[in-house]
Amino acid sequence: MAGKLWQGRFREGTSKLVESFTASIRFDKRLYRYDIEGSMAHCKMLSHQGLLSSEEEDVLIQGLGEILREIEHGTFVFEDSQEDVHMAIEQLLIEKVGEVGGKLHAGRSRNDQVAVDIRLFLRDEIQGTDEDVKNLQSSLVAQAKANLGVVMPGFTHLQHAQPVLYSHHLMAYYEMLRRDRQRLSDCLGRVDVSPLGSAALAGTSLPIDSRLTADLLNFPALSRNSIDAVSDRDFIIEFISAAALIMMHLSRMCEELILWCSAEFNYIELSEGFCTGSSIMPQKKNPDVPELIRGKSGRVYGHLLSLLAMMKGLPLAYNRDLQEDKEPLFDTVDTVRQSLRILARLWENVTLNKERLEKMALSGFSLATDIAEYLVTKGMGFRQAHRAVGKMVRFCLEEGKELEEMTLQEFKGFASVIAEDVYTILDLKKSVDSRNSVGGTSLQQVREAITLAEEELSS
Amino acid sequence: MAGKLWQGRFREGTSKLVESFTASIRFDKRLYRYDIEGSMAHCKMLSHQGLLSSEEEDVLIQGLGEILREIEHGTFVFEDSQEDVHMAIEQLLIEKVGEVGGKLHAGRSRNDQVAVDIRLFLRDEIQGTDEDVKNLQSSLVAQAKANLGVVMPGFTHLQHAQPVLYSHHLMAYYEMLRRDRQRLSDCLGRVDVSPLGSAALAGTSLPIDSRLTADLLNFPALSRNSIDAVSDRDFIIEFISAAALIMMHLSRMCEELILWCSAEFNYIELSEGFCTGSSIMPQKKNPDVPELIRGKSGRVYGHLLSLLAMMKGLPLAYNRDLQEDKEPLFDTVDTVRQSLRILARLWENVTLNKERLEKMALSGFSLATDIAEYLVTKGMGFRQAHRAVGKMVRFCLEEGKELEEMTLQEFKGFASVIAEDVYTILDLKKSVDSRNSVGGTSLQQVREAITLAEEELSS
Amino acid sequence: MAGKLWQGRFREGTSKLVESFTASIRFDKRLYRYDIEGSMAHCKMLSHQGLLSSEEEDVLIQGLGEILREIEHGTFVFEDSQEDVHMAIEQLLIEKVGEVGGKLHAGRSRNDQVAVDIRLFLRDEIQGTDEDVKNLQSSLVAQAKANLGVVMPGFTHLQHAQPVLYSHHLMAYYEMLRRDRQRLSDCLGRVDVSPLGSAALAGTSLPIDSRLTADLLNFPALSRNSIDAVSDRDFIIEFISAAALIMMHLSRMCEELILWCSAEFNYIELSEGFCTGSSIMPQKKNPDVPELIRGKSGRVYGHLLSLLAMMKGLPLAYNRDLQEDKEPLFDTVDTVRQSLRILARLWENVTLNKERLEKMALSGFSLATDIAEYLVTKGMGFRQAHRAVGKMVRFCLEEGKELEEMTLQEFKGFASVIAEDVYTILDLKKSVDSRNSVGGTSLQQVREAITLAEEELSS
Amino acid sequence: MAGKLWQGRFREGTSKLVESFTASIRFDKRLYRYDIEGSMAHCKMLSHQGLLSSEEEDVLIQGLGEILREIEHGTFVFEDSQEDVHMAIEQLLIEKVGEVGGKLHAGRSRNDQVAVDIRLFLRDEIQGTDEDVKNLQSSLVAQAKANLGVVMPGFTHLQHAQPVLYSHHLMAYYEMLRRDRQRLSDCLGRVDVSPLGSAALAGTSLPIDSRLTADLLNFPALSRNSIDAVSDRDFIIEFISAAALIMMHLSRMCEELILWCSAEFNYIELSEGFCTGSSIMPQKKNPDVPELIRGKSGRVYGHLLSLLAMMKGLPLAYNRDLQEDKEPLFDTVDTVRQSLRILARLWENVTLNKERLEKMALSGFSLATDIAEYLVTKGMGFRQAHRAVGKMVRFCLEEGKELEEMTLQEFKGFASVIAEDVYTILDLKKSVDSRNSVGGTSLQQVREAITLAEEELSS
Repeated sequence: MAGKLWQGRFREGTSKLVESFTASIRFDKRLYRYDIEGSMAHCKMLSHQGLLSSEEEDVLIQGLGEILREIEHGTFVFEDSQEDVHMAIEQLLIEKVGEVGGKLHAGRSRNDQVAVDIRLFLRDEIQGTDEDVKNLQSSLVAQAKANLGVVMPGFTHLQHAQPVLYSHHLMAYYEMLRRDRQRLSDCLGRVDVSPLGSAALAGTSLPIDSRLTADLLNFPALSRNSIDAVSDRDFIIEFISAAALIMMHLSRMCEELILWCSAEFNYIELSEGFCTGSSIMPQKKNPDVPELIRGKSGRVYGHLLSLLAMMKGLPLAYNRDLQEDKEPLFDTVDTVRQSLRILARLWENVTLNKERLEKMALSGFSLATDIAEYLVTKGMGFRQAHRAVGKMVRFCLEEGKELEEMTLQEFKGFASVIAEDVYTILDLKKSVDSRNSVGGTSLQQVREAITLAEEELSS
Repeated sequence: MAGKLWQGRFREGTSKLVESFTASIRFDKRLYRYDIEGSMAHCKMLSHQGLLSSEEEDVLIQGLGEILREIEHGTFVFEDSQEDVHMAIEQLLIEKVGEVGGKLHAGRSRNDQVAVDIRLFLRDEIQGTDEDVKNLQSSLVAQAKANLGVVMPGFTHLQHAQPVLYSHHLMAYYEMLRRDRQRLSDCLGRVDVSPLGSAALAGTSLPIDSRLTADLLNFPALSRNSIDAVSDRDFIIEFISAAALIMMHLSRMCEELILWCSAEFNYIELSEGFCTGSSIMPQKKNPDVPELIRGKSGRVYGHLLSLLAMMKGLPLAYNRDLQEDKEPLFDTVDTVRQSLRILARLWENVTLNKERLEKMALSGFSLATDIAEYLVTKGMGFRQAHRAVGKMVRFCLEEGKELEEMTLQEFKGFASVIAEDVYTILDLKKSVDSRNSVGGTSLQQVREAITLAEEELSS
Repeated sequence: MAGKLWQGRFREGTSKLVESFTASIRFDKRLYRYDIEGSMAHCKMLSHQGLLSSEEEDVLIQGLGEILREIEHGTFVFEDSQEDVHMAIEQLLIEKVGEVGGKLHAGRSRNDQVAVDIRLFLRDEIQGTDEDVKNLQSSLVAQAKANLGVVMPGFTHLQHAQPVLYSHHLMAYYEMLRRDRQRLSDCLGRVDVSPLGSAALAGTSLPIDSRLTADLLNFPALSRNSIDAVSDRDFIIEFISAAALIMMHLSRMCEELILWCSAEFNYIELSEGFCTGSSIMPQKKNPDVPELIRGKSGRVYGHLLSLLAMMKGLPLAYNRDLQEDKEPLFDTVDTVRQSLRILARLWENVTLNKERLEKMALSGFSLATDIAEYLVTKGMGFRQAHRAVGKMVRFCLEEGKELEEMTLQEFKGFASVIAEDVYTILDLKKSVDSRNSVGGTSLQQVREAITLAEEELSS
Repeated sequence: MAGKLWQGRFREGTSKLVESFTASIRFDKRLYRYDIEGSMAHCKMLSHQGLLSSEEEDVLIQGLGEILREIEHGTFVFEDSQEDVHMAIEQLLIEKVGEVGGKLHAGRSRNDQVAVDIRLFLRDEIQGTDEDVKNLQSSLVAQAKANLGVVMPGFTHLQHAQPVLYSHHLMAYYEMLRRDRQRLSDCLGRVDVSPLGSAALAGTSLPIDSRLTADLLNFPALSRNSIDAVSDRDFIIEFISAAALIMMHLSRMCEELILWCSAEFNYIELSEGFCTGSSIMPQKKNPDVPELIRGKSGRVYGHLLSLLAMMKGLPLAYNRDLQEDKEPLFDTVDTVRQSLRILARLWENVTLNKERLEKMALSGFSLATDIAEYLVTKGMGFRQAHRAVGKMVRFCLEEGKELEEMTLQEFKGFASVIAEDVYTILDLKKSVDSRNSVGGTSLQQVREAITLAEEELSS
C-alpha cells in the first residue's frame, strides 16, 4: 500500500470499494489548472512569510509548473486511488521534488483548497458565459436591425393580439439576456472572494498572510469567517440559479423557433446545416437544435434542485456531501455555454418569410384595439369603447368580414362618434407606429432600442 | 348576465365551471392595495396628459380611495365571478362613480397592471424580508457577544475537528445572512422597474407618459420593451431563488439546534415556551420550531421549481400560465419571513451548557493539528508532521490515553524535535487563540468580526 | 391558561408566536371526517378489549357523532390554539362528555393517528382521482369514436411526419391515462394499510387489537413495524409522483389544444364558454383553461420536490418536519382532480376543422415514407429506398411540385422499379389504412382500440 | 462527405457545430448491446415475414454478432459524426456486409428503436436494482438478528421517546426497502412492453409481425398506440421516482449512521476501511460513505425533476428533447445501485457500542409512557394519567431525580392508584417487551418480523 497522505492514524487501508466510491478525481481533475495556480500562490506566500526558504519556493514552483505541463500534454494520467485532484498533485509533486513537496500543505487544508479551486474556475466561466450571452445578444440585435420594419402578429395566449415589429419581438429577448448578464455580474462579486487561510474550518496557527495569497490570485476580497468559508456553496447555487433563468429564456426562444418552423406557422426557415433528418421518413428536416436546448432547460433546473437538496440541513462546517457540488456545476457550465453559442450561430441561419408574417399580422381582428383607442381620443370612455368594438368584432364574425370592410354606416351603428378617419388607422404600419409609448413597438421606439443595445454591446 | 367587462365580442357567457377554475381572485385579492395605488398613479397621469379632465380625476381618485377603505374595513367582499382583483376593483369603481369609471383603463391592460401590482408588492416584501434577516443577524450577534470566549468543538463530517469559539460558529451564520441580504438587494434592483405603458404587449397609441406614472410610484426605472415587460417573471423567480438560499441556511441552523438539543449532544436547552409536548409521552419536550423550519425549506424549494417549470417553453408574450406565479410567491414570502422572525426570537430562548461544550471541545484528539503545526514551526515538513502526529493518535488510541497525557519521551519517539514547550500548546484556549489568521477562530478575530457586524447592523 | 392536553410536564405555556407558527389546524381540519372515523374505530376496539366499558363506548361514539355533525353544519369553529385537528376534536369531546373523553387516547398517539387520517383521506381521493381520469378517458374515446375517419398530420419535431387518424392521436392520450390509472391503483395498495397500534413509535403495552381496528376501517393490511409506520410518508410522495405524471400528460394535451386553437394551426375551435377575453383588446378569445392547466403542472412538480426535500436526511422516527406533508398533498389532490374534470368537459366543447386537418395532412411530402416502403415491397433495400425518395423530395422542392405530381418518367429516374401503381398509394386514406401494424393508425387498428377502450371503461 | 444515412433530401451537410451539439453517441453507446439484440430480433422477424431472404438474415445476424464482439473487445470506436448508437451500428453493418445491411431498417424507425433499447436496458437494471435492494435488506436482517435484544433509545423529534430494540429500528429500514421493491416491480410491468412496430409514429405499411419481435425479446406485452409508444417516457420517470424514494430512505439511514458515529452519540464505530482521513487534521476518521450517499439523494431528485420539466408541454409525438432522457437515467441507475451495494457492505463494518445504547435508553424519563399506560390499566383515563405523569416528570426535573427513584409515597401524591407494582414496570427490558402490539418493539414481535423477512429474502 503506497498509502494515503493522511494515513498516519489508520491501521487498515481504505477498502477498494470505498476508495472507488468516494474518489472525485474522475471529475475534479478538470480543476487541475486552478489547483496548481492556487498552490503556486500559496507557496509564494509561505516563502514570503518565512515558512519556506526561497530555494524551497523555487523547487516547488518549478515542480508545479512541470506538473501543469505534463497534465496539459496528457503525459500524466489520473487514477482513482489518488482520491482527488489535490492529493494527486501533491503526491506527484512529492514524487518529483522529494520531501520538500510535503511542505506545501502547511497552513491550508483541502477544505479551503477546493473552495479556492472552484472559485477560480467559476470566475473564469462566469466571464466566459457573459461573453457567450453577449454574443447571442449581438446576433439578435443584428437580426433586429437587418429586418427593421417587418411586421408580425404579436401574441398573447398564442392568439393574435396586436401587430408588432419582428425586431421588437427579438429585442424582448435582448432584454431578458440583459438581466441575465446583470445576474451573472452580481454573482461574480460573491464568487470572487478568497477562502484561503480558513484551513480545515478554524484558520491556522501558522503565520500565514491570507491577503497576500488573495492578491496573488487577484481576489478583491477575503472570506470573513473560516467556518463559513469552507462550508459555503452559495456561490455555486446562485450561479446555477442564474443559469436556470438563462435556460428558461432560451427554452422560450426555442419554443418560438420550433413553432415558427412548423408548416402551420411557416414564419421562418432554418438552413439545412442546422437541421437533421429522419431514419425512416425521407422528407423530414427537423429543428433539432432548438428542441434539444428546450429539453436541456430541464437539465439545469435539475442541477439547481440537486444542490439545494444536497445542502439542506447540513450541520457546519464541511461535510463530504459537498463533493456532490462539482458535477452539476460542470454540467451546467457546459450546457449553458454550448446552448448560448449554438443559438448565436443559429440566428444567422434563419430565413424570414416576411410576406407570411405580414399577412398573418392583419388577421384575427388584430386592429380592434386601435379602434377602441381611436374612440377614446374621440372622448368615449375606454370600457364603453371596448364594448362597442367587441360588438363590431362579433358583427364581423357573423357577417364574415374584416373590420376594414365595414361601411362607415355600420361603424356608426356601434359608435356614432366614428368618422371617415377611422379608415386611416386601419393600416398595419400605422397601427404599429402609433404605439409609441416608451418601450412600445413603433419604429421609433424600436430603432432607439437597437441603438442603445449596440452601444451597450460595444462597451 | 351582469357580464364581464370584456364581454362585448362574446355571444355566450363563461361556463360557471370555467369561471371558477380560472378565477384568481381568491389569492390575488391580496394585491388590492397595490392595485389601487397603481390605478391612482395611472389616473393622475391620464389627467396630466389630458385623457381625463381634472374633475374626472377627482371622482376617480376619490372612488378608489373609498374602495381601499371598504376593503380594509372588510365591508367589501370579493367573489369568484369577479375573476381577479383588477376586474373586481374596476367594476366596483364603475358601480360607485358611474361610466367615468370606465375611463380608467385607457392606455393600459391587465397585463401591465398585474405586473406593476406584483412589483409594488414584492418591493415592499423584499424590504421587509431584509429587515427580518437583519433582525436575525442582530440576534446572532447579541448571542455571539454575550458568550464571547466559550469554546466548543468545531466539526467537519460531524466529527470533532478543532476547537472553535461558540461565537465564531454563530458568526458563520451572520456571514451567510449577509450574503442573503446582498442577494435581496440585487434582486430589488430588478424588481423596482415600472412596466406601466406596455399595455397588452405592444404599448399604446394613446399619448400616455410612462415616466410620470413611474415617478408617482417611485420606480427609478422603466421597462425597455413592452413584449418583455408583460411576459417577464424573472424577478419573482430570482426572489424565490434568494429565498431558497435563505431557507437552506436556516435549515442548517435548525439542524444544529435540533442536534444540540438532543440528550446526546446536550449543548443547549430551549425554553419551554418554544417547545411542545407529546399526546402520548408525558415527558416529551420537543424542538418543534427548528424542525418545522427545516421542513419548510423543502416548501420554498418546491415553489422555485414550480415557477421555473411553469415558465419553461412559453412563447411570448403573456400566457395564462403566468397566473400561477402568485400563490408560490405569496407562500414564499410568508414562509421565509415567519421563519426568520421566529428564529430571531428563538435564539433569545437558548440556554448554553458551557461546561459540556468545553468538555467536548477537548475530546477526540482535537489538538492534533496544533502539534502538527508546532512541528512545522520546528522546521518539519507539514506532510511529515501530519504523519508523525497521525501515529501519535494511533498510539494514544491503543494505549487509551489523551495526547496531553503522553510523556516527552513518547513524543520524541515520534518526532525528535519535540521539546517541553509542546505541553504549552496543548491548551484549549491557547489553541483557539493561536488560530489568528484572517477570519480565524481566535478571540481577536472573532471580536473584530462582532464589532464589524455591529457597525453594519447599525447603519 | 386552559392548557394543552400534554401540558403536565411544562411550567410555562407555549409562546403565542410559537403556537401560531406550529399550529396545523388551519389546513389539517380538512381531515376531520377521517379523524372522527378513526377515533370511532379505535373506541370500538378499546371497548371490545375491555379498555372501555360499553357505556363509555356509547358516550364516546355519540359525542364523536355530534362533533361530526357540528363541524359539517359549521357550528364548530376551529382555532389556532387547538394546535391540530386531533387535539381540537379530543378537547371538544372532553368538553362535551367529560373526563371519559380523556379515555379515548389510550393506546394511540397523534403519530399513528395522523397517519391513519391521511391514509383514509388519500384512499378516498385516489379512488376519486381514478374516477376523474376515467371520465376524461371516456370523453376522449367519445371524441375519437365520433370523428373516426378524420385524417390529420402526424407530427414529430412539430414537423409533418405521416398522416394519422385524429382518433388515433386522441387514443394516444387514452393510453397515457391508462398507465396513470395503473399507477394510482398500485399506489393505493400501499396507502391502504393501517398504522394504528404503532402509537408514538414503539407500539403500546395496552392490550389493543390492531387487526380489529383495521377491519373496522376496511384496511386490508397492517403496518409491520411501528417505527416505520409513524415516520413513513412514501405513500404521499408516491401519489404525488403519479399525479405529476398525470399533470405532465395533461400539459402535453393542453399544449396541443393551445397550438390547435391558434390562427396558424386553426385545427379546432373552443366554444366561447370555455374562453375568456381581454381587458384591453376587444377581439380576444383566449384558451385560458388549457393554459392554466399547463401552468399547473409546475405546481404539482413543485409539491413533489418539496416533499422529497423535506424527507431527506430525517432520522427516525417522527419529526415535526412531517407536518409539512399535508398542504402539498391537499393542493395536489385539488389541482389534479379539477384539471381532469374540466378537461373532460372541455373536449365536449371542441369543434374540429376537418377540412383544414385533411388539407394539412397532405402537405410537407407526408407520403414520402409510403413510397420508400413501396420500394421495399418491390425488393429494394430500405436504406437505398430512403435515399432515393430523399432525392425525389429534393427534386420536388427544387421544381416546386408535390410527389403525386411527378411523372412516371421522373419517378423512374430515381428508382427504376417504380411502376404505374405508385400513384395508387399516393392517397391520404390509403396511406393511413396501410399502417395496419399492431397499434398503427389504420382504421381497423383504431376501431379495435376504441372498442377495447369502451370495454375497459364500462368495467 | 460520407453523409448521414438520412442525407438524401439535403443539399448541405450538417454544420460541424450542430453535429457535435446534437450527437448522443457519447452516452447512448452504453445501449449497444440492447440495440444489437433488438436488431437481431427485428431481422429474424423480417425474414420470417418474407421481407428478407434467409440468406440475407444469416448475413445480417452474423454481421451484428461481429459488431457486438468488436465493441465488447474495444476494437470498434464510436465517433461523434455517427450521431447515435443506432446509426453507428447500422453504418458499420453496411460497411461490413454491403448493401444488404440497408435492408435491416425496413419497418422500423429510430423512434421505436431507441424506445426498445431503453426498455431492454431498464428491464435489466431494474432487476439488478431489486437484487441490490434485497442484498441491503439481507445485511440489515443479519445485523438485526445478530443483535437481537440490544435496547436503544427510540427517538421522535431527535428526543428520547421510548426504549426500542436496536433490531426493531433496523427492521424499519427493511420495511422501507420492501416497499421500494414493490415499486420497482410495479414499474417493471410498465417497462416490459415492446414498442417495436410503431415505427416513426404511425406504424408501418410493411407486413411486419410485432408480436413475433416481442416474443423474441421476451416482452410479455405490446404497446397499443404507435403515437404514444414513441413519445412515452413515463416508464423512465416512474423508475427515477422509485429511485428517488430509495435514495430518500438511504439518506435517512446515512443521517443516522453519521449521527451515531459522532463523539456525542458514540453509538457505533465504523471500521477504518470505511472511513477516510483529513489532509490537515491528523486525528480525523470521517464517515465519508454515508455522507456521500446522503448528498447523492439530491442528485437523483434533480434527475427526476429534470425529466419532468423536459417532458412538460411537449406536443406529440417524438421531439428531440427526448434525447435528454438518457443521461439522467444512466446516472440514476449508477448512483442508486452503487449506494445500495456499498451500504450493504458498510453494515458489516459497524461495531455497536451496546453499553452506551442501553445507558442512553434509560435517560430522559423514557419510561414515562409506561407509567401512564400502567395507570390506564388501573382504570384511570388516559388523558388524566398523562397529566399526572407529566407532573411527576416535572417534579423529578425539579428534584433532580429519575422516575424510578421516586418513593411510593411520592408516586401516590400524583396518583393514588399507584401501588408497589409500579417499580416492576420501571425496567428497560420489561418496558420493551410490554410493547407487544402488532409491529411493536417487543422481542416477540421483532423476532417474528425477522423470521418473516428471512422467508421473504430466501424466496
